[in-house]
Amino acid sequence: MLQPSVGARVVRAADLAGTAVFAVEGALAAAHAGFDLIGILVLSFVTALGGGVVRDVMLGLRPAAIARPEYAVIVILGALATALPASVRPPVSSWPVTIMDAVGLSLFAVAGTEKALENAVHRLPACFLGTVGAVGGGVIRDILLNEVPHILHKDIYASAALLAAVVVVIGRWLKLGPRPVALAAGIACFGLRIGAVAYGWQLPRIA
Amino acid sequence: MLQPSVGARVVRAADLAGTAVFAVEGALAAAHAGFDLIGILVLSFVTALGGGVVRDVMLGLRPAAIARPEYAVIVILGALATALPASVRPPVSSWPVTIMDAVGLSLFAVAGTEKALENAVHRLPACFLGTVGAVGGGVIRDILLNEVPHILHKDIYASAALLAAVVVVIGRWLKLGPRPVALAAGIACFGLRIGAVAYGWQLPRIA
Amino acid sequence: MLQPSVGARVVRAADLAGTAVFAVEGALAAAHAGFDLIGILVLSFVTALGGGVVRDVMLGLRPAAIARPEYAVIVILGALATALPASVRPPVSSWPVTIMDAVGLSLFAVAGTEKALENAVHRLPACFLGTVGAVGGGVIRDILLNEVPHILHKDIYASAALLAAVVVVIGRWLKLGPRPVALAAGIACFGLRIGAVAYGWQLPRIA
Repeated sequence: MLQPSVGARVVRAADLAGTAVFAVEGALAAAHAGFDLIGILVLSFVTALGGGVVRDVMLGLRPAAIARPEYAVIVILGALATALPASVRPPVSSWPVTIMDAVGLSLFAVAGTEKALENAVHRLPACFLGTVGAVGGGVIRDILLNEVPHILHKDIYASAALLAAVVVVIGRWLKLGPRPVALAAGIACFGLRIGAVAYGWQLPRIA
Repeated sequence: MLQPSVGARVVRAADLAGTAVFAVEGALAAAHAGFDLIGILVLSFVTALGGGVVRDVMLGLRPAAIARPEYAVIVILGALATALPASVRPPVSSWPVTIMDAVGLSLFAVAGTEKALENAVHRLPACFLGTVGAVGGGVIRDILLNEVPHILHKDIYASAALLAAVVVVIGRWLKLGPRPVALAAGIACFGLRIGAVAYGWQLPRIA
Repeated sequence: MLQPSVGARVVRAADLAGTAVFAVEGALAAAHAGFDLIGILVLSFVTALGGGVVRDVMLGLRPAAIARPEYAVIVILGALATALPASVRPPVSSWPVTIMDAVGLSLFAVAGTEKALENAVHRLPACFLGTVGAVGGGVIRDILLNEVPHILHKDIYASAALLAAVVVVIGRWLKLGPRPVALAAGIACFGLRIGAVAYGWQLPRIA
């Protein structure tokens, strides 16, 4: 009885932490673009919650972000963090932010893929939904900033989320234990993402 | 028996009037951008109905705009209004349009927040949904025009909708009568919006 | 017993063929924009499946694209086609692609409008949903490419889909047989689209 409860609490804490990181990133991007207070709030919401909302709507579920208040609280706190003096707040591209972002990405990709499988989505589109939940918020943020979404041409980011989704789907297919599968998927995503930032890995392009 | 029916008819008329104003604004923006007839029609639909559709889809409801025909009729009439000779039709930024737009904004923000609360959304995300319903159409319009959405960096517009949503939520929380709460929320939104246009109020930015 | 089954199989094959064409177009556009492999995959998915997903979500249905695996398979194969040597693969704007695209457009417009009517949407918004399902994927693709969607200002494309939707709605209204109505609608859409490309037809603009 204790184990699952501890595990659930860890996942829950990590979910809220990931939401907070994405909210801060959205707020900093908005502040950097010269948006006003409401623009900062909107970009925080969209970056942190947009991917999960799109995924849940496709699944026919009410998005957790509107069913429960704590996500909105976290996002508002994250957005307010940009009001901290510049000497205190971390730059958008610093290592601590990159690491927290990679943790959030891994968690959202794993949890989103599991959610899709639990809702009777076929394995192949489940990979797609898991990736959408993890990177969709960033895509909407970039659209609102009037930029080509970074994930389409820069870095290894969506690919790391997709890798996590594929590991989850294959692990579940092979009837492996859900916890080791989730852990392996998360580590694969985190490792690929951090490796890509550290060593400048890029996906190939087609000439 | 008479009173609610009169109230409902007023709200209904105002809802359709707000839809018409937003449709005209979308059509004028499309004509100004050099779009063709179908582009004008698309931008009318999106501006007038997009916010409500996104809100209703998140709520798990069938959007009123596809369940009932009168919204589409209104939008088509609104789009056709741009075909009027330029000497007759009002410029996009004239005072009559600004006032009608502020009325539509207030109405959509109040009605959308109430709809969210009635569908068992928590108070905090209900504010978010009420605002989305009121300003979402304009955001999608700006995205289609390939511009950074105005509400993120210009004017006081989404903030006025958010104010209305917050007043509705607090009023309902305090168990005040629904009609005075709706009226107070609408007046607050309308007043803030008109004051912002008249006096050039801006939200602060973060340096 | 044979007839409907043959008809259903033809529609099904045409649906998958249309999906494949749209996927290839999305992939080629992504490759042309210099996107990496994941960007190509994302644009393929979005172009081929985005319109249908938006339509189905508005209808309150689970999108076929996530309920069944074959759509994802088709899209992945379509995306991989861009990896073919340039000497083998057709240019985006060649006649074979234009014709296949017009077939896909006609089919999606007809099938989407019928789906909307079957789900108790009123006739007027059903025209809107049929058009969205047919052209929505291309609109999202253009947004991700950070361009003004082509359908808003170029060519006759969405208008052809709208024509098909209107023919379906009127034909069903007049209680004509579903198959001749679908055929007439598809031919009207295909003919208008191909005529527009061949003769450079344009919709009027408003000065």
